[in-house]
Amino acid sequence: MSILKLRIENLSPSQLIVSFYIIAVLISVGLLSLPITLKPGVEWEFIDVLFTAVSAISVTGLAVVSTPDTFSTTGIFILMFILQFGGIGIMTLGTFFWLLLGKKIGLKERQLIKTDQNQSSLSGLVRLMKNILLIIVAIELVGGLILGTYFLTYFPTWQEAYLQGMFAAVSATTNAGFDITGQSLIPFAQDYFVQTVNIILLTLGAIGFPVLIELKDYYLSRKTRKIFRFSLYTKLTTTTFFGLMVFGTVAILLLEINHFFADKTWHESFFYAFFQSSTTRNGGLATMDVSEFTNPTLLVISVLMFIGASPSSVGGGVRTTTVAIILLFLYSFARGRKSVKVFNREFDPEDILKSMAIMSTALFICFTAVVLLSITEPFSTMAIIFEVASAFGTTGLSMGITPELSSVGKMIIIALMFVGRIGILSFITIISKPGPEDRYHYPREKVIIG
Amino acid sequence: MSILKLRIENLSPSQLIVSFYIIAVLISVGLLSLPITLKPGVEWEFIDVLFTAVSAISVTGLAVVSTPDTFSTTGIFILMFILQFGGIGIMTLGTFFWLLLGKKIGLKERQLIKTDQNQSSLSGLVRLMKNILLIIVAIELVGGLILGTYFLTYFPTWQEAYLQGMFAAVSATTNAGFDITGQSLIPFAQDYFVQTVNIILLTLGAIGFPVLIELKDYYLSRKTRKIFRFSLYTKLTTTTFFGLMVFGTVAILLLEINHFFADKTWHESFFYAFFQSSTTRNGGLATMDVSEFTNPTLLVISVLMFIGASPSSVGGGVRTTTVAIILLFLYSFARGRKSVKVFNREFDPEDILKSMAIMSTALFICFTAVVLLSITEPFSTMAIIFEVASAFGTTGLSMGITPELSSVGKMIIIALMFVGRIGILSFITIISKPGPEDRYHYPREKVIIG
Ligand SMILES: [K+]
Ligand SMILES: [K+]
Repeated sequence: MSILKLRIENLSPSQLIVSFYIIAVLISVGLLSLPITLKPGVEWEFIDVLFTAVSAISVTGLAVVSTPDTFSTTGIFILMFILQFGGIGIMTLGTFFWLLLGKKIGLKERQLIKTDQNQSSLSGLVRLMKNILLIIVAIELVGGLILGTYFLTYFPTWQEAYLQGMFAAVSATTNAGFDITGQSLIPFAQDYFVQTVNIILLTLGAIGFPVLIELKDYYLSRKTRKIFRFSLYTKLTTTTFFGLMVFGTVAILLLEINHFFADKTWHESFFYAFFQSSTTRNGGLATMDVSEFTNPTLLVISVLMFIGASPSSVGGGVRTTTVAIILLFLYSFARGRKSVKVFNREFDPEDILKSMAIMSTALFICFTAVVLLSITEPFSTMAIIFEVASAFGTTGLSMGITPELSSVGKMIIIALMFVGRIGILSFITIISKPGPEDRYHYPREKVIIG
Repeated sequence: MSILKLRIENLSPSQLIVSFYIIAVLISVGLLSLPITLKPGVEWEFIDVLFTAVSAISVTGLAVVSTPDTFSTTGIFILMFILQFGGIGIMTLGTFFWLLLGKKIGLKERQLIKTDQNQSSLSGLVRLMKNILLIIVAIELVGGLILGTYFLTYFPTWQEAYLQGMFAAVSATTNAGFDITGQSLIPFAQDYFVQTVNIILLTLGAIGFPVLIELKDYYLSRKTRKIFRFSLYTKLTTTTFFGLMVFGTVAILLLEINHFFADKTWHESFFYAFFQSSTTRNGGLATMDVSEFTNPTLLVISVLMFIGASPSSVGGGVRTTTVAIILLFLYSFARGRKSVKVFNREFDPEDILKSMAIMSTALFICFTAVVLLSITEPFSTMAIIFEVASAFGTTGLSMGITPELSSVGKMIIIALMFVGRIGILSFITIISKPGPEDRYHYPREKVIIG
């Protein structure tokens, strides 16, 4: 036991996080393999159990089987638990359990949480984690009650209405993208109320926990008339988040105006475009079959999914701040400036290099995945690019090829969902061991570039 | 006249380079529109004349018309002249003409040449330019004589043999990728001698002029027993150049072993893979119809074309040094190092940021082009990605869609070839005006990333 403890203490935070996620996947595989999870007579292969477990823990939502056809009611509750566990973050829940048990949280554990939610400050972390869990569960309960009550007109019994409402609220808030309707939100394509509630829940889950906390602190400070300043992180990620939402809506509207929207009214078109744009920010639910879109639209959606959600949220991808910092850097570079300024602040040069490293590595991984899937799968390059972007962004949209993937193809998508969830930074730290310190230096020499 | 002079003197080097390229394109359009250029009875649309002019000046080699069916013998000589002009670089030729006219080269002109060939030192530039022109013309003459003499067995008359040999040598050395066989090098698919000569000429053109100069200096220094050190640029670009050549050959061999190479002998397979790999480093000639390759191979070739050739060469793309610096940066980043070291030297941090800026902008431009072409053209995403990578890398390979492109599609490819040739750095400088100096600073603030 002391040897195990010693081993754990020698692991870096990133390595511990990955170990915990692997254990969470294994437990999920166990839970999903229980006979009570499945409907009578349903059997599934191990690779599909593993795929579903990783998809649920990483809250991606890509599905190789139909959830309502495969899961019993008990199974649906188990799935909801796994989504909750994955979505809020194993470390958040872990902290909470430790708190419940009255344990004091040591620096090692705090650093663990830090890597999982990418916090750059350790102070007040335990308080933060309690806040996260309370906020998320409160959002889910309110959302579930609203949707469940509203669903009373849709479903025959109140039990089914509230089960559907609760599952929809959990799936939306954790941005899991799973559905128990069997057709995502397509049955609600004309129901703008359900869509609006879903978009609000998706956004609250994907906007980033620190943003929610700061919003709460902001309203508290107004009550007490204290001075409050939003952090650069909050300003940057919120602007990018809603900027991408608007860009996606406009792009989808313009690109499909003569195709998918040709026979739709303006408000139908707007809601189709708005919902599908919002869902790339990481929900993965859909009010239509996305494969009906044309290639340009699918390419734009792929990029939006690849970008993903805010850091410190339930979402994956390269994250909004990474893209925002790179765009601001390019603007400064073109203007010949040395420093990158925004919102009356300057970025740390290290954060710029970090963003570049994340972007390059993510592109490299996704490109490799596209090439590998082109070898193993018979689908079009477009469908493969879309599937890879969706898995890496842990978004969960698909042009419909997920259940048809070969076993090797499923393994590749599993790996992408896993990397998308733990984040590129943790991934880089895991696959490399830190080298010797920069004690020596060579002469600098410029080279001819580009 | 003095107003014109004043205007020119107010332009930045990058703006002047672009102006000169535009003028060169216009002159080429004029030359290609001459009746003597065309075979009797041939007519072509303006967009095709413009496309051919840009393709020739940027030595890309994408063709909307068949060269032997369209051009008269005079036209072929005119085309060879344009390729020479574009390949060696307008500034190189310009310098040479100035030298011939006995003009003294002022600092303004030197800076022009500097931007065109991306030189980081102004000293000895005029000597360098003379060297470039002499070396390239010498290579072309030797190559033309060897190929022409060898072609005596292929062609009925010695005139045709030497015309074919000379054109092939110019097209290969300038990496133009145009052919007057009508089928690129497919007639020589079994002729390993012709292929080897072509690969040597392609490499000499694309390896970067400073490398050739340093090689010459190295041999001179061995004669005189002086100490000579190759520059970091030469070591880096040469390693990357040949590394990509080997990687491409192995990748194509492995990916096609059960497809295109299934019915080929080992030496046929090797030469097909080796030639097609080498040609992505920017020749654009081919010994086969590349659309016979499977999608994974086409994706790998697309990336190789996007990377392109060495800076300060006849080639385009993001350039070898850009990719090498980013890969070395990622390695250092993963090892937690602050500085990037290679060959007992350290990179200037500014060069790392520059490489990142080039890579991001290039990806952004190419992605936008893929989306736009997906709107205007009916072809598969794979064929469009391949065409875009080929145009931006000024490589000239195609899956065969070039002549079928719509006029808007042709304009997009024209823009890509142009940007690929002038280089992303010049492009960035052109579209942006320098902002005010960094006289003021804001507090630095870290944000949560990835
Ligand atoms: K999702
Ligand atoms: K070329």
